[in-house]
Amino acid sequence: MNHRTTPVKIGHALVGNGGFSVFAGPCSVEGMDQFSQTAQFVKGHGAVGLRGGIFKLRTNPNSFQGLGQQAYEIVKTVKAQVGLPFVSEVTDPRQISDLENVVDMFQVGSRNMHNYALLKELGHSRRPVMIKRGFSALIKEWILAADYVVQAGNANVILCERGIRTFENATRNTFDINAIAYAKQNCSYPILADPSHGTGIADLVTPVSLAAAAAGADGLLVEVHPRPAEALSDGYQSLSFPQFETMMTKLEKVLSALGRRFEHV
Amino acid sequence: MNHRTTPVKIGHALVGNGGFSVFAGPCSVEGMDQFSQTAQFVKGHGAVGLRGGIFKLRTNPNSFQGLGQQAYEIVKTVKAQVGLPFVSEVTDPRQISDLENVVDMFQVGSRNMHNYALLKELGHSRRPVMIKRGFSALIKEWILAADYVVQAGNANVILCERGIRTFENATRNTFDINAIAYAKQNCSYPILADPSHGTGIADLVTPVSLAAAAAGADGLLVEVHPRPAEALSDGYQSLSFPQFETMMTKLEKVLSALGRRFEHV
Amino acid sequence: MNHRTTPVKIGHALVGNGGFSVFAGPCSVEGMDQFSQTAQFVKGHGAVGLRGGIFKLRTNPNSFQGLGQQAYEIVKTVKAQVGLPFVSEVTDPRQISDLENVVDMFQVGSRNMHNYALLKELGHSRRPVMIKRGFSALIKEWILAADYVVQAGNANVILCERGIRTFENATRNTFDINAIAYAKQNCSYPILADPSHGTGIADLVTPVSLAAAAAGADGLLVEVHPRPAEALSDGYQSLSFPQFETMMTKLEKVLSALGRRFEHV
Amino acid sequence: MNHRTTPVKIGHALVGNGGFSVFAGPCSVEGMDQFSQTAQFVKGHGAVGLRGGIFKLRTNPNSFQGLGQQAYEIVKTVKAQVGLPFVSEVTDPRQISDLENVVDMFQVGSRNMHNYALLKELGHSRRPVMIKRGFSALIKEWILAADYVVQAGNANVILCERGIRTFENATRNTFDINAIAYAKQNCSYPILADPSHGTGIADLVTPVSLAAAAAGADGLLVEVHPRPAEALSDGYQSLSFPQFETMMTKLEKVLSALGRRFEHV
Repeated sequence: MNHRTTPVKIGHALVGNGGFSVFAGPCSVEGMDQFSQTAQFVKGHGAVGLRGGIFKLRTNPNSFQGLGQQAYEIVKTVKAQVGLPFVSEVTDPRQISDLENVVDMFQVGSRNMHNYALLKELGHSRRPVMIKRGFSALIKEWILAADYVVQAGNANVILCERGIRTFENATRNTFDINAIAYAKQNCSYPILADPSHGTGIADLVTPVSLAAAAAGADGLLVEVHPRPAEALSDGYQSLSFPQFETMMTKLEKVLSALGRRFEHV
Repeated sequence: MNHRTTPVKIGHALVGNGGFSVFAGPCSVEGMDQFSQTAQFVKGHGAVGLRGGIFKLRTNPNSFQGLGQQAYEIVKTVKAQVGLPFVSEVTDPRQISDLENVVDMFQVGSRNMHNYALLKELGHSRRPVMIKRGFSALIKEWILAADYVVQAGNANVILCERGIRTFENATRNTFDINAIAYAKQNCSYPILADPSHGTGIADLVTPVSLAAAAAGADGLLVEVHPRPAEALSDGYQSLSFPQFETMMTKLEKVLSALGRRFEHV
Repeated sequence: MNHRTTPVKIGHALVGNGGFSVFAGPCSVEGMDQFSQTAQFVKGHGAVGLRGGIFKLRTNPNSFQGLGQQAYEIVKTVKAQVGLPFVSEVTDPRQISDLENVVDMFQVGSRNMHNYALLKELGHSRRPVMIKRGFSALIKEWILAADYVVQAGNANVILCERGIRTFENATRNTFDINAIAYAKQNCSYPILADPSHGTGIADLVTPVSLAAAAAGADGLLVEVHPRPAEALSDGYQSLSFPQFETMMTKLEKVLSALGRRFEHV
Repeated sequence: MNHRTTPVKIGHALVGNGGFSVFAGPCSVEGMDQFSQTAQFVKGHGAVGLRGGIFKLRTNPNSFQGLGQQAYEIVKTVKAQVGLPFVSEVTDPRQISDLENVVDMFQVGSRNMHNYALLKELGHSRRPVMIKRGFSALIKEWILAADYVVQAGNANVILCERGIRTFENATRNTFDINAIAYAKQNCSYPILADPSHGTGIADLVTPVSLAAAAAGADGLLVEVHPRPAEALSDGYQSLSFPQFETMMTKLEKVLSALGRRFEHV
């Protein structure tokens, strides 16, 4: 019944090899201090990789759209400091060749999961690709999106559950814990959980992260910010440094109870 | 931010006092052998209470509707054998006075969560009441349904998350893990998880049960059958005896890692 | 492909015989003046029946719950004045025998569509039954709910589409126009449309009513109030008298274009 | 309350000027005969423009993906024959400059509504743009997607409601008739209805088209095929020629009843 997961290597980090791989960082790269502080903190508490938005997809054309190319030097410097791989979203097939010099894994965002032009182009990239589930995509469609990338030539694909859109409005999305367990049993791609978008409420991120680990996820993609209240995007769902530390401590206990451990670089 | 949970006593069993309370049994009480075997097995492996349908709500008027009053003697006999409290669904305010002699906690099913005539009448019962979330009810509406019972005079109310109806069709429902964490933080009712209806697939019940425990649920309501393939209802989502035993072993480890333990009678 | 619709008689009014039957009135019967004025106005502009809540199902136990039995005399007096049949919601099987003296058709509300105890009891009533679609019920489940009433002995059943719960929040519900067309083709029950709950916005009631007529609905159930801003419930979705008159004028034109006409008593 | 609609010109055709503009054609351009026959038939029965897929977005990478550039000559020839403007989907910003020589209006498909890289690039095109609603997009997000194109420099934008994804599975999507009425009142973009994707069932296309017209839509985008059973994609929801003719006859009556008429080239 269970498919065997095929591990994917991102820089020096492994995902899907039995360990639990945490990618952490701010929603958006906002500046050198913010990104560097966050990177050092999360590395010191068990993260295996960094996340951070450079080009942001925003529903409203007047919202903050990310630093764009201005972030490139910041990211390169911080990566050199901490020695962790970096994941960031690509929103246009024409960005790929440039971004390949900065990112170690491309993220396809929820709103682009059905953007097959982008998926096909990523099939020609030398970087692994993480595909977030479309917020209204069937699990079946999500796996087919990964198949698009693989069929175009890139076998290094990871899935990421980040919550689906339902009638419930107390939370930003409904995190689909079933999808974690179902996908682990029905495909061979590693599965990360994004409890930040999956809940939209910082206080729910830790319990849902523990749940994802208990259900079998291969790791997390989680938002952390030195001062969540001042974040330029998504502050309400970002963990503070102490919250991140507490979460990692609890995660380690749950993983250990199930015979697992954190993946380390 | 966190509400303190008010414990509820069902017979000798406690729910919401920090421990983890497992109610297990068949979807429907089908006969003496089936119910007795199941009761003894689940008691022997850590269950604190029994579940089993007597009057079944079925979408199709021609489906099996439960044994009805014929089940009363079976239930009384088995309860005496194993000494565990019994939870069963009430579907009509006129059944309450009779059922009170058999059940130790009334279950309000998902399809009756908005049946305020039933909720008000249960406010006059001496038995505790477990309210399953309507499959399209907002968390806010679910808590208000519990308030109906309390305002009518019965303070012993428990909530049960059992999955919501979404566009996803690989699973029977989408188990809302966020709702567990959210309700724990925003109301004082104990929260059970029903991973059987929450997934509709026996192979997903264990990972989702572990997730619910990790997210802070006060216990489970789970379907177990001696021979799932022969069950008169919901066999595809019922655990076999060995599956139940394995789940309980894993649950104990996760609970222990988080400083919790099984509630026992 | 098309099922033939079986007409149902409510008092002197026919539904499902090819004509278009409008039931109109306030969300709740609030008093003699309000109900009498409304009844006379809607009768004068083409309504074939009256609607009005006596026992209200409210999500919040502290909201206005309807006048209850105090409304009985008001309703009887107004019915005698205008000579139209009256439709009202039944929320408890124990209300049926009393309510039968006041109502000419029972309404099963959206939140009770899955309340099979109520449906079965209505199967023994001598009054026709209108079943609103559960706000998350499949079309198939809605038709099966009607079958419950019929199998219990009452063949006079009408369906009413009133919108479903989706992620969209600009409107109160998503009126499922497909369901009107689909149900007309796949079952023989007459279908009414409730654009008041289906939209939750008075300004949308007229266009959606016209749409329902164009798609083949057998009539409407629509909320009208002499002073919507002062209504004790649902005023934001109630038509004023001038809005009702305008809607009826447009409806007549659309119906006429399709070879149909208003049903009259 | 009502916004005034800003008309958009597509070739010689107007949309949003009070008339009702029908764009019809096959799901995919499959060959010269199929497209030419269809174009001549729909022109002869009131269509003001042609539709037809060249590059198809398919969930499954192994499904038919459209003829691609092979379709260009077919489309140019048929456009010259019938003298109608042509609408087709663009799926990649890099296709725009080529496609501009063939299409008179770009279609942004439902799965690309959130593809802001594509929307911004279309802001620089000289062709008008029709934005289909994302199948899980809020009405508010749909209008913001149109704003993206306008802010990037292209004021000629049309919206198209094509159904949303809900729990209902009897129909392919749930056509959101409320959204037609709501968008007409709350923005100035013309609104087309796509009853083919909105229902997914050919027998429902006519009633839902009539409903859309009655609710105020500015026109239709509808699938028509000479032999629906042989279509390479979406045949089950395509109208045959006789079905299209019948629909147009009924539409004319409903429009006329509401003081409107078909737009003609």
